[in-house]
Order: sequence, then structure tokens, then C-alpha cells
Amino acid sequence: MPLLYVALAHYPVTNKNGDIITSAITNLDLHDISRAARTYGVKSFYVITPLTDQKALAERIVTHWTHGAGADYNPARRDALDLIRLVDTVEDAARDIEHREMCYPKIVATGARKHSLSIGYAQFRGLLEKKFPYLLVFGTAWGLAESFRDQADYVLEPVIGATDYNHLSVRSAAAIVLDRLAGIKN
Amino acid sequence: MPLLYVALAHYPVTNKNGDIITSAITNLDLHDISRAARTYGVKSFYVITPLTDQKALAERIVTHWTHGAGADYNPARRDALDLIRLVDTVEDAARDIEHREMCYPKIVATGARKHSLSIGYAQFRGLLEKKFPYLLVFGTAWGLAESFRDQADYVLEPVIGATDYNHLSVRSAAAIVLDRLAGIKN
Repeated sequence: MPLLYVALAHYPVTNKNGDIITSAITNLDLHDISRAARTYGVKSFYVITPLTDQKALAERIVTHWTHGAGADYNPARRDALDLIRLVDTVEDAARDIEHREMCYPKIVATGARKHSLSIGYAQFRGLLEKKFPYLLVFGTAWGLAESFRDQADYVLEPVIGATDYNHLSVRSAAAIVLDRLAGIKN
Repeated sequence: MPLLYVALAHYPVTNKNGDIITSAITNLDLHDISRAARTYGVKSFYVITPLTDQKALAERIVTHWTHGAGADYNPARRDALDLIRLVDTVEDAARDIEHREMCYPKIVATGARKHSLSIGYAQFRGLLEKKFPYLLVFGTAWGLAESFRDQADYVLEPVIGATDYNHLSVRSAAAIVLDRLAGIKN
């Protein structure tokens, strides 16, 4: 299995006007992306927010499904949300991976717009075969700040559909990207 | 473009115990699947529920984003939710397609479990090239009733990830399936 880690960043992301903001936690992001991460063998799913109250909210959601009534009600959901780790920053996630893998991961940003550092899916699949740790970062709201993408080690190409419409939800985009990187094509 | 239509069924689906139920509308299902449908050139997205109050709820959500304040706030979201048609049954959706295409569509069921009628993604892509209309049906809750899948023209193979975990959300599964059927692999 590749050493693939996923993060969902609530900072630094942009709003509709392009300003850098901290977005709010969306319950279904945690469920959908952890279920997709579990399906595709992702090692951990980092939920990133620097806001104390938002971290407490995420903690409550995760605990309900991993140790509370939800864990008994739906063990499959528990297995997925067990992958979640709550951290303040992308760097904290990367340091946690470094601690586990004895190697600082490469940071791979995503987004709906092209970027000069873009790599394609086949190229990234090739990199993942080399057993180096990678942290694949998705942005909430209107997407990761360009300043963050500029500093990433790589930027993954946008998902191209059959039209020029590029407004997938982050939940859908994460699912599709993981399928492209690690799915079995039956 | 292929004559691909998508439906999200709230009946006939099963609950945790395998009983056939009518499930409730989930707001983000409408948003996420319509955005994925728009991305991949799907012709219409049928939201299927026989319940009057649930149809009224879905109608309110769709109208807000297609004609209400949401339409001005986020025109991209309007373009996606414009694809939604609310109908009582899968058969009503199929009849609507027949009216538009002058040809009754083939019904293609989905699900997380294998089925004896299963066809693979490459085979379905081949069928879609022939310009015949297809209605691809996703189930909410614990998935489409087996009795419904048994009567479909085809059952699409489950999405296979990198593990044996098969509990994607319907939002994620729909996004992945559409990418496999109509995405451009960059």
C-alpha cells in the first residue's frame, strides 16, 4: 500500500471574493472523506482547523462515531472516522507523518484551477509506488489559497469532467481523486 | 455527448435491517450529485421520492438555488441544480426520458454489492457511445432494494477501492462512477 495521507484544510482557503479565510467544519465532509479514505487505503485523514471551537465541534462528531452511540450503531462508520486526526495546521499534519514514517512527507496541493507546478494522475500514481510519504491536501470553501499552492511540493491537476464546469464539491473531488490514484478499474 | 441520465432513489431502498423503506431527502445529496452531473455532461438528474412533504422540501431547495436568492449568489450552483427534476418513481423518470428522446431508456442500477447482472465500467462506456438513452440509478440509505436491481436492464459493478471496505456515501459513489464513465484522464 502507498504511504498516502489526506488532509482537509479549513485554512488557508479563499472565500468567493478571493480573500483568505478560515472556513467552518462541515459534518458531511468528515464522514464522506473518511469513508473514501478508508475505501482507498489512505493511512490517516487530517482535519485541519486552527479554531478552538471548530476543533471541539469536529472532536464531538468524531467521538460520537468512534466511541459513542454511533460506534455501536454503525461499526463501518467507526472504522472510517477512526482515520481522522484533528490538527491546527498543514505543517502539524506533516510533522505527525514525519514522526510516524521517519521522513517528512511531500505536500501535494489540489484545486479546481490549473497551476504551473501541476502533475497528472499517472505521474502521481508512479510517485506513490516509491513508498515515500505524501500528504494530499484538499481545500474547503472556494479552495486552497494560491500562496499555499505555490509553496507545495506538487499541485495535482484539476479533475477534468466531460464539460468545462469545474465546481465539484470537495467531497466529490476527494472521492474522484482517490479513485484515480488508488482505485481498481473493474 | 452520451445520453446519460442519473437518478437518486429514496424508494425502493433498504434500511440497516434490509427492510424496504422510503428514505428522507438529504440536502447535500442534491447539491453534490447535481454538481457532479453537470461536470460530467449528464442530461438530467432525477430526484425520486413518492412522499409529498419530501418532494416539497426538495422543491424548496432547488427553487432557492435556481430562482431564489441562491441563484444570484452562486450562478454555478444554479447551473447544477437546474439539472434536477423531481418525480415520484423511477418509472416516471424513464417515461420523461422516453418523451424527450423518443425512446424508453435502459435502466442501470448501482450498489455496493456484486450482482449476477453486473457489467463493468468499460462495457458501460462502450454502451454509452451508441447514443441510446440510459438511466443510471443510485440508491440512498443502505442502497437500492435487491428486487429493484433484479428487474433493472443492467447492474453496474460496485466501485472497488484499494481495500475491502465498501461503504462510500452515495455522493462519493456517484461522483466516482461518473468519473469512470465520462471523465477525461489527465
